[in-house]
Amino acid sequence: MVNQERLWNRLMALGKIGKQASGGITRLSFTSEERAAKDLVRQWMNDAGLEVREDAVGNLIGRKHGTDLQAPVVMAGSHIDSVLNGGNFDGPLGVLSALEALQCMNEAGVETHRSIEVVAFTDEEGARFRFGMTGSRGMAGKLTAQELEATDEQGVSIADAMREWGFDPARISDAARPQGSVHAYVELHIEQGKILERADLPVGVVTGLAGPLWLKFSVTGQAGHAGTTPMSMRHDALVGAAEIIQVIEQEAARQDATVATVGQMNLFPGGVNIIPGRVEFTLDLRDVNAQTRSAVDGDIRRLAQQICDERGLSLDVETLQDIAPVHCQEDVQDAVYDACATLGIRTIPVVSGAGHDCMQLRDLCPVGMIFVRSKDGVSHHPDEWSSPEDCATGASVLYHTLLKLASL
Amino acid sequence: MVNQERLWNRLMALGKIGKQASGGITRLSFTSEERAAKDLVRQWMNDAGLEVREDAVGNLIGRKHGTDLQAPVVMAGSHIDSVLNGGNFDGPLGVLSALEALQCMNEAGVETHRSIEVVAFTDEEGARFRFGMTGSRGMAGKLTAQELEATDEQGVSIADAMREWGFDPARISDAARPQGSVHAYVELHIEQGKILERADLPVGVVTGLAGPLWLKFSVTGQAGHAGTTPMSMRHDALVGAAEIIQVIEQEAARQDATVATVGQMNLFPGGVNIIPGRVEFTLDLRDVNAQTRSAVDGDIRRLAQQICDERGLSLDVETLQDIAPVHCQEDVQDAVYDACATLGIRTIPVVSGAGHDCMQLRDLCPVGMIFVRSKDGVSHHPDEWSSPEDCATGASVLYHTLLKLASL
Ligand SMILES: NC(=O)NCCC(=O)O
Ligand SMILES: NC(=O)NCCC(=O)O
Repeated sequence: MVNQERLWNRLMALGKIGKQASGGITRLSFTSEERAAKDLVRQWMNDAGLEVREDAVGNLIGRKHGTDLQAPVVMAGSHIDSVLNGGNFDGPLGVLSALEALQCMNEAGVETHRSIEVVAFTDEEGARFRFGMTGSRGMAGKLTAQELEATDEQGVSIADAMREWGFDPARISDAARPQGSVHAYVELHIEQGKILERADLPVGVVTGLAGPLWLKFSVTGQAGHAGTTPMSMRHDALVGAAEIIQVIEQEAARQDATVATVGQMNLFPGGVNIIPGRVEFTLDLRDVNAQTRSAVDGDIRRLAQQICDERGLSLDVETLQDIAPVHCQEDVQDAVYDACATLGIRTIPVVSGAGHDCMQLRDLCPVGMIFVRSKDGVSHHPDEWSSPEDCATGASVLYHTLLKLASL
Repeated sequence: MVNQERLWNRLMALGKIGKQASGGITRLSFTSEERAAKDLVRQWMNDAGLEVREDAVGNLIGRKHGTDLQAPVVMAGSHIDSVLNGGNFDGPLGVLSALEALQCMNEAGVETHRSIEVVAFTDEEGARFRFGMTGSRGMAGKLTAQELEATDEQGVSIADAMREWGFDPARISDAARPQGSVHAYVELHIEQGKILERADLPVGVVTGLAGPLWLKFSVTGQAGHAGTTPMSMRHDALVGAAEIIQVIEQEAARQDATVATVGQMNLFPGGVNIIPGRVEFTLDLRDVNAQTRSAVDGDIRRLAQQICDERGLSLDVETLQDIAPVHCQEDVQDAVYDACATLGIRTIPVVSGAGHDCMQLRDLCPVGMIFVRSKDGVSHHPDEWSSPEDCATGASVLYHTLLKLASL
């Protein structure tokens, strides 16, 4: 249906921007690599006959006009920034598939009732500023001036970086779309998991997204000399933290689909022969079911407090980020199922464990997602891979989904 | 017996060198602070009528000649370097007490059969190069050229630093004392623990030192996306490490006097939303009983391997340092007990959990130690404190111990 070769060639061409010696891609937001990537996609949008603009937070938008210019628009897209040393599919495949779909429509002279926009959102990954989904937050009208104060490792804030690239941080609200102006948003993305691979299917229909709750635990005990402090007289923050980490695993594992990860940890003072007086660690807790996530969160906190009480430690838990789970609207899911039926493709419902820009757009419009099979489920890694055939199949499903959503 | 005021004043004067705004002392080896400290002590050694020299590894030595210049010498001392932001007593009290004892002997015209040397050993703490007891290793003839390649955070090696301060790293063997040339070494040191405080006693007779075994554990699993990897499909290196840390605590706590500490830990890759693929952590394991320590070490390794096997993780354990426990010779202990009896001071046997220079001298000569009560057991901290009275009592015990050891 779509032009598999053109889609693949563009994916490979875009993948040269920010390519590292290691084979991975580093394309952080508000850098010359991201600028070059946006300029290349902008050129392709022009080639596809779209009307192109960049909004106040740097989202790159290409529009195919519908026959009813007043009707709420349909949007499709994803992002073209990457994590450090990431892959070539996470983000770009969604943007280029939407572009491919619109270009095919234009080439075939297909008219739609609603206008359709393809969007490359600014900084989904948050790899540079430890704060992500900046572009989709801006479009949803949820980005704040305070959030733009997040800094990168060099101390450059998002606001500074915006100014450097010609954006005015005081005008971010210009990027916000009015309520009712967007009919639906649909995002094609690689699965980043192994469900489709195990089911031997190229695409899946996303029913919902697990909401990530990010917490920072600080366990405080008493530092001391490793040689002269008997075991019975210790208040070792690390042994307490280790017990909490066990509990976190157990509490998540009891549930069907909850995932809990401790990914960062720091010991203070951090000497080989000093009992840790303080330990800080992060928890990333997710579930598609908000009640389940909240119950697990509560259980973990209660048990962690109990462990600390028993060990004479004190506990502090800070929320770093709290994104609610997202339910993909039935209308959008149905459009994807219909598209698969039209193409004679078997598909299954899947859940997204990863976060995506559609999490931010949820309050603006109905959202949905199409997942494309990922080799070995690998993502955020140079080995990230989806076959040219699967990519084209996904883009074809997106084509028909958009046609359906953009019709009367 | 000794001059309490002089001893205390010297301790306070020395404590000004390397004093930080925080109140702590930072006096790392082969720095201008350490040089200034050695120069000041050298001057006091001269004032005390000692013959002063510095050996090939920078040990500062003051000698009071005995009547028999051929007899093996008696040595006393400690170190005057510090950890980062450390205290004023750990090390200096041993050097200045020995100096005070010899000065009192000279002032009173007391002659001894054997010569007595007071030594300020180079770099006991190892805070700069993560390699310590350099001076005592050198004197024991155990320091190697390879060990001098250890570097500080700026990449400066011990060998570089020695050259910078006028020492020739090729000549370290000149510092080695011949076997049979040292009759005994006795070190006065603050306890760094709470046993004497609880027993309400100013000094203790050290019976032995726990030997520190330092290991580095590397647990390797599989990194993965925190959102898209179900709990059942994980090989999380951190959860495995946390379980090992629990086992380490349990195995140490079962024994009478074993202490085990995990003080450093690093997670890779270390992202909030990335399952740790590898975790490295250190273990500091000590006991005065070599068999007990070895049994606990074996149990920990066996259980850690079992945990890793169950979780599909791989385990590697590397030895960073292995110092055998030290038994303090009965002759030296007896001399300390006799000194206490002479002074009418009640004392008790104690064990050292911390490492000291006498660990290196053990193969050269009989060794022993006198501990002085530490306030709250605090050490390696600006709050480190022993009272002027306790310091003087310790120095008096050392005086009589040296007299006894240096007599025929
Ligand atoms: N899709 C994706 O990898 N999003 C960001 C990572 C996350 O979900 O934490
Ligand atoms: N005495 C002392 O604190 N020595 C070095 C620290 C250790 O024992 O690990």
